Amino acid sequence: MAGGDKVVLLDVKVSMFGMRVRVALAEKGIEYEYREENLANKSQLLLETNPVHKKIPVLIHNGKSVCESLIIVQYIDEVWKENNPLMPCEPYQRAQARFWADFIDKKVYDPGRRIWATKGEEQEKAKKEFIEILKTLEAELGEKAYFGGENFGFVDVALIPFYSWFYAYETCGNFKIETECPKLVAWGKRCMKRESVAKSLADPKEIYEFVISMKKKLGIE
Amino acid sequence: MAGGDKVVLLDVKVSMFGMRVRVALAEKGIEYEYREENLANKSQLLLETNPVHKKIPVLIHNGKSVCESLIIVQYIDEVWKENNPLMPCEPYQRAQARFWADFIDKKVYDPGRRIWATKGEEQEKAKKEFIEILKTLEAELGEKAYFGGENFGFVDVALIPFYSWFYAYETCGNFKIETECPKLVAWGKRCMKRESVAKSLADPKEIYEFVISMKKKLGIE
Repeated sequence: MAGGDKVVLLDVKVSMFGMRVRVALAEKGIEYEYREENLANKSQLLLETNPVHKKIPVLIHNGKSVCESLIIVQYIDEVWKENNPLMPCEPYQRAQARFWADFIDKKVYDPGRRIWATKGEEQEKAKKEFIEILKTLEAELGEKAYFGGENFGFVDVALIPFYSWFYAYETCGNFKIETECPKLVAWGKRCMKRESVAKSLADPKEIYEFVISMKKKLGIE
Repeated sequence: MAGGDKVVLLDVKVSMFGMRVRVALAEKGIEYEYREENLANKSQLLLETNPVHKKIPVLIHNGKSVCESLIIVQYIDEVWKENNPLMPCEPYQRAQARFWADFIDKKVYDPGRRIWATKGEEQEKAKKEFIEILKTLEAELGEKAYFGGENFGFVDVALIPFYSWFYAYETCGNFKIETECPKLVAWGKRCMKRESVAKSLADPKEIYEFVISMKKKLGIE
């Protein structure tokens, strides 16, 4: 792609889905205009570029919009093929990468949310569920450096934003993820050594403050 | 790929997710061994090849398993590239195809299920939701022959199995989808003229009988 590309990202700083796109853009070294959305008062541009879901993130590339974080990441990988390929080349490895990214998409967010949005028994159940999901992911990671092997790739991009939420989950749930999933936390630290990740993820303390403000807004505690 | 490929499909005849894989295999002209699963008593092979979700369909290609219907369809398309490509070539078109397949995956099954699994007000709500989703899809189809344009492709494969369920939805819900979505029903008829589709979809009457047996099992009506 030529240097004349215009790339705009509609996003929310603490969003794990938005962070995926930011990591992918950083991996590829793409310059873009970042526009923070206010979800309580969505911009006309967001409503026009994602009329079906009306959700962030939306990537607008030369006037054309792409929605849904994992679809955007694949789009970025296919358009800017040259630098740091995120998807493997071989069909079976690609299917495996899609399987685990889809697993993360379906399984991690909801119990994570319930850790900070519920209390008592419900919260305990959410913590248990969350740890089980992370253990399944840790088993898949095994002794590898990254989910795809030696190189940071698609599944890492899908999961790493949740790592920046660990502090909020742990503080609200009064537990330590590292005790249960030491290899996964080591993987998170390894990813954080990449500039693309370190500069794209939100600050865990800021996420925690956001969670506290959400709890107040929802009248929890 | 050489003719020595061994392809096995673990599936359930009335499953819309299984049908997607059967359509894709038929489009590519791939011979395979079909194994009907009993979901009340899953085979050891299913539990071993899809230990995470334990769901059909599973494609076993030369001993390696691929799970999740849309991931399997993409895998088939990438391995058997030569015949009838299902995904477009251009990244933006690919992102659009993935967006709509994902929309179908997230939105169609659940209200469809509630049409036959609930009654009264709940059922009315499900019918309304279902029609709204189909109207969004019909608007996307527009005047095109298929979702991707002139050629039968990925989004068509994702949606067409639901067409074979229309008779069961309509009979249980006492409504006509064609009245609300004539273009979508015309698209369904168009797809059914393809041998790959006609031979892969379950018989609507058989699906209806399956639904009736499920209603009895669940004690509905």
